[in-house]
Amino acid sequence: MKELKLGTLYYEISRHNPPALTIQPGETVSVETEDAFSGHIRKDGDVQDTERMPYANPQSGPIYVEGAEGGDALAIHIERIEARLGLAVTMVTGAGRLGEYLGMDIAKETRICPVKDEKVWWSPQLGIPYAPMIGTIGTAPAMGAPTTMPPGPHGGNMDIKEVTEGNTLYLPVYVPGALLHLGDVHAAQGDGELCGVAMEMAATVTIKVDLVKDKAMDRPRIRSPQEMMAVATGSPMELSVARAYADLILWMEEEYGLPRWQGYNLCTQVGTTSVGYYGVGTVAAKIRSEYVEAAAAQG
Amino acid sequence: MKELKLGTLYYEISRHNPPALTIQPGETVSVETEDAFSGHIRKDGDVQDTERMPYANPQSGPIYVEGAEGGDALAIHIERIEARLGLAVTMVTGAGRLGEYLGMDIAKETRICPVKDEKVWWSPQLGIPYAPMIGTIGTAPAMGAPTTMPPGPHGGNMDIKEVTEGNTLYLPVYVPGALLHLGDVHAAQGDGELCGVAMEMAATVTIKVDLVKDKAMDRPRIRSPQEMMAVATGSPMELSVARAYADLILWMEEEYGLPRWQGYNLCTQVGTTSVGYYGVGTVAAKIRSEYVEAAAAQG
Amino acid sequence: MKELKLGTLYYEISRHNPPALTIQPGETVSVETEDAFSGHIRKDGDVQDTERMPYANPQSGPIYVEGAEGGDALAIHIERIEARLGLAVTMVTGAGRLGEYLGMDIAKETRICPVKDEKVWWSPQLGIPYAPMIGTIGTAPAMGAPTTMPPGPHGGNMDIKEVTEGNTLYLPVYVPGALLHLGDVHAAQGDGELCGVAMEMAATVTIKVDLVKDKAMDRPRIRSPQEMMAVATGSPMELSVARAYADLILWMEEEYGLPRWQGYNLCTQVGTTSVGYYGVGTVAAKIRSEYVEAAAAQG
Amino acid sequence: MKELKLGTLYYEISRHNPPALTIQPGETVSVETEDAFSGHIRKDGDVQDTERMPYANPQSGPIYVEGAEGGDALAIHIERIEARLGLAVTMVTGAGRLGEYLGMDIAKETRICPVKDEKVWWSPQLGIPYAPMIGTIGTAPAMGAPTTMPPGPHGGNMDIKEVTEGNTLYLPVYVPGALLHLGDVHAAQGDGELCGVAMEMAATVTIKVDLVKDKAMDRPRIRSPQEMMAVATGSPMELSVARAYADLILWMEEEYGLPRWQGYNLCTQVGTTSVGYYGVGTVAAKIRSEYVEAAAAQG
Repeated sequence: MKELKLGTLYYEISRHNPPALTIQPGETVSVETEDAFSGHIRKDGDVQDTERMPYANPQSGPIYVEGAEGGDALAIHIERIEARLGLAVTMVTGAGRLGEYLGMDIAKETRICPVKDEKVWWSPQLGIPYAPMIGTIGTAPAMGAPTTMPPGPHGGNMDIKEVTEGNTLYLPVYVPGALLHLGDVHAAQGDGELCGVAMEMAATVTIKVDLVKDKAMDRPRIRSPQEMMAVATGSPMELSVARAYADLILWMEEEYGLPRWQGYNLCTQVGTTSVGYYGVGTVAAKIRSEYVEAAAAQG
Repeated sequence: MKELKLGTLYYEISRHNPPALTIQPGETVSVETEDAFSGHIRKDGDVQDTERMPYANPQSGPIYVEGAEGGDALAIHIERIEARLGLAVTMVTGAGRLGEYLGMDIAKETRICPVKDEKVWWSPQLGIPYAPMIGTIGTAPAMGAPTTMPPGPHGGNMDIKEVTEGNTLYLPVYVPGALLHLGDVHAAQGDGELCGVAMEMAATVTIKVDLVKDKAMDRPRIRSPQEMMAVATGSPMELSVARAYADLILWMEEEYGLPRWQGYNLCTQVGTTSVGYYGVGTVAAKIRSEYVEAAAAQG
Repeated sequence: MKELKLGTLYYEISRHNPPALTIQPGETVSVETEDAFSGHIRKDGDVQDTERMPYANPQSGPIYVEGAEGGDALAIHIERIEARLGLAVTMVTGAGRLGEYLGMDIAKETRICPVKDEKVWWSPQLGIPYAPMIGTIGTAPAMGAPTTMPPGPHGGNMDIKEVTEGNTLYLPVYVPGALLHLGDVHAAQGDGELCGVAMEMAATVTIKVDLVKDKAMDRPRIRSPQEMMAVATGSPMELSVARAYADLILWMEEEYGLPRWQGYNLCTQVGTTSVGYYGVGTVAAKIRSEYVEAAAAQG
Repeated sequence: MKELKLGTLYYEISRHNPPALTIQPGETVSVETEDAFSGHIRKDGDVQDTERMPYANPQSGPIYVEGAEGGDALAIHIERIEARLGLAVTMVTGAGRLGEYLGMDIAKETRICPVKDEKVWWSPQLGIPYAPMIGTIGTAPAMGAPTTMPPGPHGGNMDIKEVTEGNTLYLPVYVPGALLHLGDVHAAQGDGELCGVAMEMAATVTIKVDLVKDKAMDRPRIRSPQEMMAVATGSPMELSVARAYADLILWMEEEYGLPRWQGYNLCTQVGTTSVGYYGVGTVAAKIRSEYVEAAAAQG
């Protein structure tokens, strides 16, 4: 297994970033990542120094995958996500769109949350399930270099909790080597990532990266052992819901032969959604593969 | 237990509708409801006769709850939802906002789906879990009479799958007797109710209705044995997400004493969402009560 | 000319409201209307008594138009809009969605603004052009009774400044007699009606009401001597823009024979928009009729 | 006057693009720009070769402004916009969000429209007013390199028709020299740029570029001789309306001393909006400066 130790951190997912590591398709890599605050906050009293670093969600990598070219896809099997320092950090930084309802009189408070016994300790009394996920992961676009703030077709700051251990994330490849970036790991996160700051942690992420040749995709996809999921992003959120489900339905048609209008109805009955940061409208539409298989079997 | 047999069907949730039944707070009622298509479709070949009935989601009731007045709330314990005719109906009627992605060449097809063995049979090969829910349920507003299409503060066509057996729905009371209407039951429904037609069924719904005096609420709430949920509606959907979570956070503060900005952070980590018909942007924000209790315990 | 003096005020646009006046198609009527605050505020120091009247936008009428039936349309020629009391009232009542940017520390202040010399005096130093418009006007739906808050296919609280002197508003008819309601006149209003309170005034409105038989329309339309306009409503606003333009394009095709895809392109070049209260996403899409005529002439 | 002849075309607004010209603040430059289709379509029968060039909206420049640094602003006086080849091109490429209403059966048709006699000839029978504007213009961000598709704080593909002759556009400066890019000129465009393709033309743009030191702005602003305008972008569009007006109000406060809540009310009465491509929700909020001055004068 290759290792990529913490090195230069990037705040863009850019074809201009030089590869930090080159791998063969099928290789497994252990990648050290920094937290969303660039590691400024490790203990009570620490604050984010936005003078020193005005950007968020630093990325490790990029990883150059031999043989990857535009029009291919990466299949990234997420094997393990470990808390590198045994802790996660969260806080409330602003009221966002809830100010209209909650007022603006924010009680700011940073929480350093130990990660242990398969829990993240929000307070000494409350341990919530450790449910780690990669918040920001993406491949470099052929044109344009997104910062690590917006999600998009290339992946990026999707904040979808299904980008997690045991699942496979599929990302489009746009440039030679794909140039995979990742970071911004969360120890836990709810639907909507309401205040914009989940359980942010420095992590060690173990991934096995496969290459799927000639597999153009418009947007990211995810597979768990049970489910297929399509990810769309952008506001208004109802249109992301529509687009994510449309991608899922076309994928069901393509892979299982289920006619799209049947898939459209089936998703109506058993589809589910997962919501990333609500402010940017990222949505995963999901369905259990067993239902798709059985539906397609009917002829 | 009182019984309300199928009678006059209403397509508005209106203070002008005369009570079909009067109950005391705390009474249990069994209510027969018709399906969203007013029962026009029972077997292969049947079609909806929109000439005869241009409206959808007929309501049984209204039920007059003795002593209920504006400023109170109803607590509706949903004890049982049974398929009255042993079947559910679904179909695809239009591409909606997915036409841009799937094309408009719709294969229309009505499915009569048997409900048996705790499953709804989408096809002979595919039984999906029977997960019944009340699609449309609401109390009559003091001013204005919504049809059974839009959801709102009064409830209405929320299509939230957590309005289900074992849960309690809280609705605001606006007029004397509350005038509870209900119908449009689904045997199953996914997040977003994508094609707008879930597993529509004629049902018998058993509810116990309690009255909570002097409990003004701005919008509906739900409790399951494990979770508290607030429901908001309206587009753009990201604003419904914000409002539903804001309602939930204020409820957590009110009932458990958890300061709102702590609740705001906690929902970020462990809140989840459930989505009604995506075209109207109904969203339930949810959290496990045990987390709220433990978080509040920290002082 | 018939006169309808100020009488019972309605806060719903409802088929249950008894006609206050019956007219023949083609008759001209002078209608007295009350302001959005039900006339509570006439001089400095007055406040709205929401205990006494919790609703806004009172309606005069309804006017019963002989011979009108579902499937027809009303053509309402707006001949004159006069300030009945020589003044308009405005204020800031909340930050709405701007609180996130402006803060919540609102300086409340009621402005009693004289209307004279073709101006509305926002302050002794600033007279803005008197540009009167009917904020809320609508026909009673066949099913459901909207309050005077939301706009919709029936018209209602559209707050579109082109509903003004010299223009003709077309509204669908749903019930016998149409039951036309109107009120909530503004002496002036900008795009978006940002703070939700325009220059609210008690008015005398002179309209000539024609009946167009068998003219089903899905939503309101407006004609000025120069322009044709279609009005759509609902969030997210981008979808109202799409729908308003689509209605306009289909109307151009229907009336001038301009093929829809040519109309679609033409609107791209010379279409304009007018925005009602931004919080509900009402949009008028407009085009000069001379362009449509000339474009259609090309064959 | 300096001249920048057509040279390398860029499809990103990027700090990695080498300056094509360096100017002193206050200098006037004549810049040749290419049309949105990279000049592939000049006569009937031409088509866009997306194999050769998959991107749209090519940019001329960048122009390096001596002395410009992050935290400054550029004041770009647009003196003249000329049709470089005497023609503009438009077409319908897809139904977009109108497909739901117009169907998907698009009649594709490219129009080569002569620009002469102060008109753009949509057809031999229909000349519409020549109202040229710069569709895409922006400064290079410090982090991230947007393509020429999305608008943003840096300007970019705003498609706001007030970026026109006689007006001044203010853009934030992020990097040394500002690196001003521009292109994608339209001979005319309506609100919403409905089909996404306006009257696209190759142009010669004459601008005088001033530097405003220490003038951090969050988003672009425009001044005409009569109006001040703030531009915001992003969906849902109602939030762009809110943000654009909020920017405008804060600018009115900053420059004229009009307290924000008074400005908020004033914009309600006399503010207007201009809409760029509706699919991305760009909105300019506008007000006449004379009103702001008079309102502020009241003390």
